[in-house]
Amino acid sequence: MEEICVVGIAGGSASGKTTIVQKIKEFFGNDIVVISHDSYYKAHDELPYEERCKLNYDHPDAFDTDRMVEDVKRLKSGRTVEIPVYDFSIYNRVHETLRVEPKRVIIVEGILILDSLKLRELMDIKVYVDTDADERLMRRLKRDMAQRARSVESVLSQYAQTVKPMHEQFVEPSKKYADIIIPRGGENQTGINILQEHLKLWVG
Amino acid sequence: MEEICVVGIAGGSASGKTTIVQKIKEFFGNDIVVISHDSYYKAHDELPYEERCKLNYDHPDAFDTDRMVEDVKRLKSGRTVEIPVYDFSIYNRVHETLRVEPKRVIIVEGILILDSLKLRELMDIKVYVDTDADERLMRRLKRDMAQRARSVESVLSQYAQTVKPMHEQFVEPSKKYADIIIPRGGENQTGINILQEHLKLWVG
Repeated sequence: MEEICVVGIAGGSASGKTTIVQKIKEFFGNDIVVISHDSYYKAHDELPYEERCKLNYDHPDAFDTDRMVEDVKRLKSGRTVEIPVYDFSIYNRVHETLRVEPKRVIIVEGILILDSLKLRELMDIKVYVDTDADERLMRRLKRDMAQRARSVESVLSQYAQTVKPMHEQFVEPSKKYADIIIPRGGENQTGINILQEHLKLWVG
Repeated sequence: MEEICVVGIAGGSASGKTTIVQKIKEFFGNDIVVISHDSYYKAHDELPYEERCKLNYDHPDAFDTDRMVEDVKRLKSGRTVEIPVYDFSIYNRVHETLRVEPKRVIIVEGILILDSLKLRELMDIKVYVDTDADERLMRRLKRDMAQRARSVESVLSQYAQTVKPMHEQFVEPSKKYADIIIPRGGENQTGINILQEHLKLWVG
């Protein structure tokens, strides 16, 4: 098979997308490339840090999805792209870009990638990682407190104000576009194996 | 791989399980065998037809699951089994049995097969076919009116009295045991392909 396969992997915040993508990446190494929607967060050079912190990062409008669509199209046609780099510590895009070479399998991941019709139209396989909301909240609390030095209050307040409502409005409804759903996330090794073995057919 | 793979395929009434199983069966032909939980509906020779009609056929207790567990164990160990035959037109088991030979892949299908711990323990892959309740109701109405000459009233009354409550109590909660979920059912060809290609690894 000489074609390039685009796999979309969506799912709520802390659903286990990243673990699944990491496991697949470890398995295939340089035969696949992963592009995150997060890299395409819009630049906000016009706003001070205090204002940028307060933006809603769980809404589809937070992303420069058109640029991602162009990059995926280029990769799919075998061309190299320069993808933007986002720095979470300053809530802004930096000026450097990252050169990405095309591979047989291109994984496009992010909470909202199945919400975009233009992205969906580029995907050969659409995957949704479905993990219970309370499991996701527990994971997010642990992760944000440990890795991002956030307080319980700040995590819960962001969860209640944007994560949960945006999940219910945009993420969960996009599940209906999935070809397969992987429940429970990163611990579901049988589900991951089934996807991985399918991708083997493309990597060759 | 010399092992025998047991695949469980569950999902609500009219979710598209049968279509998926048929497509897989057509693809693999004699390399796989399909066993339906429905074949194991309990015999009710002690009740007249009028009483048998009224039983709740969507509850786990309607099935002789222990016999199915024994049969799947036998098949998995490479032995032939005699499975019971159920006649829907008389709401009862008939006296004949059906001889089933072991194959590399054994598909076990039925609305409640993921509800049974003993059955789950025998499965190498657990699949849940997830179709919206209103889609399932539309399909069931069309099917039961066309193929089983039932009236709208009788279909809706059975749906409200047993199908829906049993689905919510037993079928839907068993989704959490699935390794992969195939949304939309029989029309989801990409999802079916992913499962099919995985089974190819077992059929060899």
